[in-house]
Amino acid sequence: MEHALAEAEAAAERGEAPIGAVVVLDGRIIAADGNRVREHNDPSGHAEVLVLREACRVVENHRLNGADLHVTLEPCAMCGGAIAEAQIARLYYGAPDPKGGAVDHGPCLFNQPTCHHRPEVYGGIDEQRCAALLKDFFAKLRD
Amino acid sequence: MEHALAEAEAAAERGEAPIGAVVVLDGRIIAADGNRVREHNDPSGHAEVLVLREACRVVENHRLNGADLHVTLEPCAMCGGAIAEAQIARLYYGAPDPKGGAVDHGPCLFNQPTCHHRPEVYGGIDEQRCAALLKDFFAKLRD
Repeated sequence: MEHALAEAEAAAERGEAPIGAVVVLDGRIIAADGNRVREHNDPSGHAEVLVLREACRVVENHRLNGADLHVTLEPCAMCGGAIAEAQIARLYYGAPDPKGGAVDHGPCLFNQPTCHHRPEVYGGIDEQRCAALLKDFFAKLRD
Repeated sequence: MEHALAEAEAAAERGEAPIGAVVVLDGRIIAADGNRVREHNDPSGHAEVLVLREACRVVENHRLNGADLHVTLEPCAMCGGAIAEAQIARLYYGAPDPKGGAVDHGPCLFNQPTCHHRPEVYGGIDEQRCAALLKDFFAKLRD
């Protein structure tokens, strides 16, 4: 999560929502990035989707069986769906997101009968630091 | 939907699930594609995400306000989430997907309080032809 937090900080410096993610396979980080929605004009440019795509390029497969995803915020529906599509084994997230999260809030995607792959989920990892980054960023936007 | 069906047929010829999509803005198709999950080793390579990304490149924005998405199959959670992120105005889909759909089945994403943009949704457009393409493709896979 330390590395994901650094990516979130870098995203904030680019003017993006400060969310970062890494994919770990066999104890090694194979992809790391932060949000790039505005930079790339890409509504799918959330940190999670970017690292899933990069990790898939690295392993030359459209699935990441056995891999873990660490992300600083509870994933939204798009990212939760992408995590299921990629068949990620374990999801570790930082701050819960009651307003937009889709893992433990709203649709609770992985509990749906239409979800064909359910990762193990561990929320609240480094929650305070992950949430503080977001809070500071949006407070500055409102200034 | 005619153009989306042609993209679905082209996807089948590439060995991908036969699903096609187009984005229409001001009465003009600005992006059209079919699934490329395997070709690109990309779990987010569903037709919907590909055309949303391409359309955003065309309009140089991360949102597609006022645009319509036509797709041959009811979108999954990832694609439904991407449609909300892109703020698509109207979604037209072909075949319903009770097993993996996330619009009118499973999480019914756009009805969730955590969904921040709800397109108008019209399902069952050219349903028979859209469903037949999928049925034929998966029947051949099982042969």
